[in-house]
Amino acid sequence: MTNPPSGAPFSTPDGFATLMAALPGPDLAGRAAAQARDSVLTKPRGALGRLETLAIWVAGWQGTARPRITAPQIIVFAGNHGIAARGVSAFPAAVTAQMVAKFMAGGAAINQLAASTGAKLDIVALDLDRPTTDFTTGPAMTDHDLTRALAAGWQAVDPAADLLVVGEMGIANSTSAAALACALYGGTPEDWIGRGTGVDDHGLQRKAETVRLGLARHQCATPLEALRCLGGRELAAMAGAIARARHLSVPVILDGFICTAAAAVLDAMTPGALDHCLAGHVSQEPGHARLLEKLGKAPLLALDLRLGEGSGGALAISIVKAATACHSDMATFAEAGVADV
Amino acid sequence: MTNPPSGAPFSTPDGFATLMAALPGPDLAGRAAAQARDSVLTKPRGALGRLETLAIWVAGWQGTARPRITAPQIIVFAGNHGIAARGVSAFPAAVTAQMVAKFMAGGAAINQLAASTGAKLDIVALDLDRPTTDFTTGPAMTDHDLTRALAAGWQAVDPAADLLVVGEMGIANSTSAAALACALYGGTPEDWIGRGTGVDDHGLQRKAETVRLGLARHQCATPLEALRCLGGRELAAMAGAIARARHLSVPVILDGFICTAAAAVLDAMTPGALDHCLAGHVSQEPGHARLLEKLGKAPLLALDLRLGEGSGGALAISIVKAATACHSDMATFAEAGVADV
Repeated sequence: MTNPPSGAPFSTPDGFATLMAALPGPDLAGRAAAQARDSVLTKPRGALGRLETLAIWVAGWQGTARPRITAPQIIVFAGNHGIAARGVSAFPAAVTAQMVAKFMAGGAAINQLAASTGAKLDIVALDLDRPTTDFTTGPAMTDHDLTRALAAGWQAVDPAADLLVVGEMGIANSTSAAALACALYGGTPEDWIGRGTGVDDHGLQRKAETVRLGLARHQCATPLEALRCLGGRELAAMAGAIARARHLSVPVILDGFICTAAAAVLDAMTPGALDHCLAGHVSQEPGHARLLEKLGKAPLLALDLRLGEGSGGALAISIVKAATACHSDMATFAEAGVADV
Repeated sequence: MTNPPSGAPFSTPDGFATLMAALPGPDLAGRAAAQARDSVLTKPRGALGRLETLAIWVAGWQGTARPRITAPQIIVFAGNHGIAARGVSAFPAAVTAQMVAKFMAGGAAINQLAASTGAKLDIVALDLDRPTTDFTTGPAMTDHDLTRALAAGWQAVDPAADLLVVGEMGIANSTSAAALACALYGGTPEDWIGRGTGVDDHGLQRKAETVRLGLARHQCATPLEALRCLGGRELAAMAGAIARARHLSVPVILDGFICTAAAAVLDAMTPGALDHCLAGHVSQEPGHARLLEKLGKAPLLALDLRLGEGSGGALAISIVKAATACHSDMATFAEAGVADV
């Protein structure tokens, strides 16, 4: 899919910001009912640990005491970056399109992970032949570009999905994510960069220098301006999809550093905007753990991934599914005739 | 299933020890072929982190460059303990049989977890009406009891399974596991006990005292003698099943503290005996992390579980499945026409 149609309920960044200012919260009655159910399931109190809090969290968004995950969706957004020409990645920019072709052909890691967990996989390639502007020379995107990318993300979410993972592919986008994180949270470029897909020490220096130049070039008054000036189309689309999921009350599993940087824009716009989001994993990229700490999110998995594509989020789907299955289908003490204490 | 038939290739503990002295290793050619395949898959080197080492590990036991998990088996062994009468658990001994009934009826956590990951679930109840001897007064089991329990585990493994999880149910068995760990590795009873299903401070003191009395009572010359004197039928059965899996070259996912204590007996008998075993998770029970450290096993998950039943091992199945799916079904650089670096 390329150049996705519009149809989103906003036509400017300000329109998107307005939607972000009025987010629905969880269903408190559903969450309370799930909490009550958890306390009468036939197990020692708290013995299922994090599975219990996960199930209750899903229950809050689904508005039911017995939540279920039967239709998870994974969306991988792809974009190209002007800064790729600065040698900030171990791979050439052409690899973005090659990887999209591989997603379409079914040969990538995310295809296997989606199949393994029974998730629907959608691929959204965003104007790959039109990289963003090198953000050391000007804003990465115009208002129009940003709006289109946010809308592509918004529109890509399947309203029938009951769990969403957003992932990305975009050569150079860990540098874009580092610049964005640095703009949102401060610190030095070195705090936020890492080896990404595997740059050497010189590549790492180029990443730091690129972030430094980008931050010096742009004084961004709002988080959305930081996304426009330093981000990329796939980052904006992930933000749009996460926002749409919130409006649909669909829980989201965040993937790695780049996905989390995109999500952080929403949190910076509206505190609590990521209450419907779970950190699926913590990656090898050092900025990821730092970002999750800023967001107050404890990762579900720690498997030393650094692939992107939604891979860590996809792995976490099975755990969330299992948590809801335990919560919703286990017997209660009353049903089972087992002694409680 | 109760009183499982014999038919195992040993009829004494010594016979089992003889089998443990001649364990097959991994298929080195299969493992090397998987390692070679990993290096040409279309992803940055090492970007799938632990999924890569998991897939190569399974490949070694399956003896193929492209391993698959299509027939996982979970076996839950249940046993009763004489020491339950000493007030070392938050639950009465009758709960063991009640929980077995719940496993059979499909209402326990492990039923939902098995269904969620597509695993076959078998329940083996071991002489529940005949608890082991209180080990503060004599050996928990006779040679005959031990042999029967080892054989029950050995026989319960499905030769068609391609991945095995062993779990347990047995009121008071975290005290038995603590005594066993203390006998194998030394330290104080306090190093190895925890709150199990939720004992209070007095219960915790009774657990420590029970372990202390047990260790003073029995000077065990071999790991198998420690299992006989301090263990229980479900612990012995888990050891028997793990040993059988090794002889079948079936990889095993260990569950929590009690399962890992049973497995540790095999490691103490034969160094490397657990090379076919993965630590599925680390539980809330403090002795578990300590045991895993002694065994040199890094847990795959950390979800604060403390349920037993094979629950943590069952959750890890999805991750191992996903790892083998990525490894075996992803395109190579040559197939995909993607630039390598």
